[in-house]
Amino acid sequence: MRKIITISREFGSGGRELGKRLAEALGMAYYDREIVTALAEKSGLAEEYIENVSERGIPRYYPITYARTFTRLPAFSEPHMKVLNEQNRLLLELAGKSDCVIVGRCADVILREYQPLKLFVYASPESKMQRCRLREEEGRHYTDRELKRRMAQIDSGRARYRELTDGNKWGEKSGYHLCINTTELEIKSLVGAVCEFASCYFDEKKQGMRENH
Amino acid sequence: MRKIITISREFGSGGRELGKRLAEALGMAYYDREIVTALAEKSGLAEEYIENVSERGIPRYYPITYARTFTRLPAFSEPHMKVLNEQNRLLLELAGKSDCVIVGRCADVILREYQPLKLFVYASPESKMQRCRLREEEGRHYTDRELKRRMAQIDSGRARYRELTDGNKWGEKSGYHLCINTTELEIKSLVGAVCEFASCYFDEKKQGMRENH
Repeated sequence: MRKIITISREFGSGGRELGKRLAEALGMAYYDREIVTALAEKSGLAEEYIENVSERGIPRYYPITYARTFTRLPAFSEPHMKVLNEQNRLLLELAGKSDCVIVGRCADVILREYQPLKLFVYASPESKMQRCRLREEEGRHYTDRELKRRMAQIDSGRARYRELTDGNKWGEKSGYHLCINTTELEIKSLVGAVCEFASCYFDEKKQGMRENH
Repeated sequence: MRKIITISREFGSGGRELGKRLAEALGMAYYDREIVTALAEKSGLAEEYIENVSERGIPRYYPITYARTFTRLPAFSEPHMKVLNEQNRLLLELAGKSDCVIVGRCADVILREYQPLKLFVYASPESKMQRCRLREEEGRHYTDRELKRRMAQIDSGRARYRELTDGNKWGEKSGYHLCINTTELEIKSLVGAVCEFASCYFDEKKQGMRENH
């Protein structure tokens, strides 16, 4: 039985770190940036563009060098849709290969046939600001206001993409098995509990499959 | 350091069972019906009335034998408010005595000074219906429609009381540390994961207190 864990998360909540650590602890593959790189290689589009399309949606018009011309592409243009379709195909391919943890990209929806364990990771605005500051790239400093706007933009892109994908509300707890508030908690200290929950979920799933056969 | 776990839950989600099992596993006191009994003894009011007031709110007018007269009491009448005040006093007294798990009664708000671990337990409507059927009292059978109405009434009472108590939305995940979807899961299989999460929460709380002193 294939075991897939999908992680949806608010920007700055530590969901990515949790995903990485879970994959490590459970000996599962981990996919996040790898997906962007693979799509960029395949399509010849810039990684930055892919990253924006890949799960956040993009601004209505996005400047990009495409087919050697500098242009502004509308959201849901042909290359945009191609990236999303290619991404969905890649997610299904990866899930078919081995057990894995996938962060973002509406993987919970795209891989629904696999009945993944669906986690949502969130935190208080203050805690998310603090986490963002800690991982700020060197030489790059956002003001508080800029950072807040960036967080809101990214999350609303994720929400929009999710709603377009399956009509459900991003972050609405009924769509997830476990919603984890990371405020004031160290991500690494949470791994044991989440692994325990995952093994309980997969055990019941296995039993359910047995009973249905 | 006092350890308090509060459990808010949708009717039929198995939150009460989870609370009992957690208390047992962690060697903590467990309070739920005990509060109703203590309040009934103290006030001389019927347990059924107390139970309705205690966390669900009550219908606008509630028929009751009060001071030997059969009457209809408005919600937030004097006896109603007395019961709620007495309940809050009792919650604080119990929390002062020992580590404990408390189910419902807005204990997460009333005991906020203790920084309790706040859990929210929920499930899909179908799963809640099924759990309710399993624990239906003998000789009492609700139709599906009656059961759905009862579930909605009880949850909306809980939501109303919560909103009156602290202005926050009942079930809104930002108000809780962990939201657990029990759909298709056996409650007893979840205990290990939640204990693990609790110990992680209390460890960080302890460390935080140490750093502040």
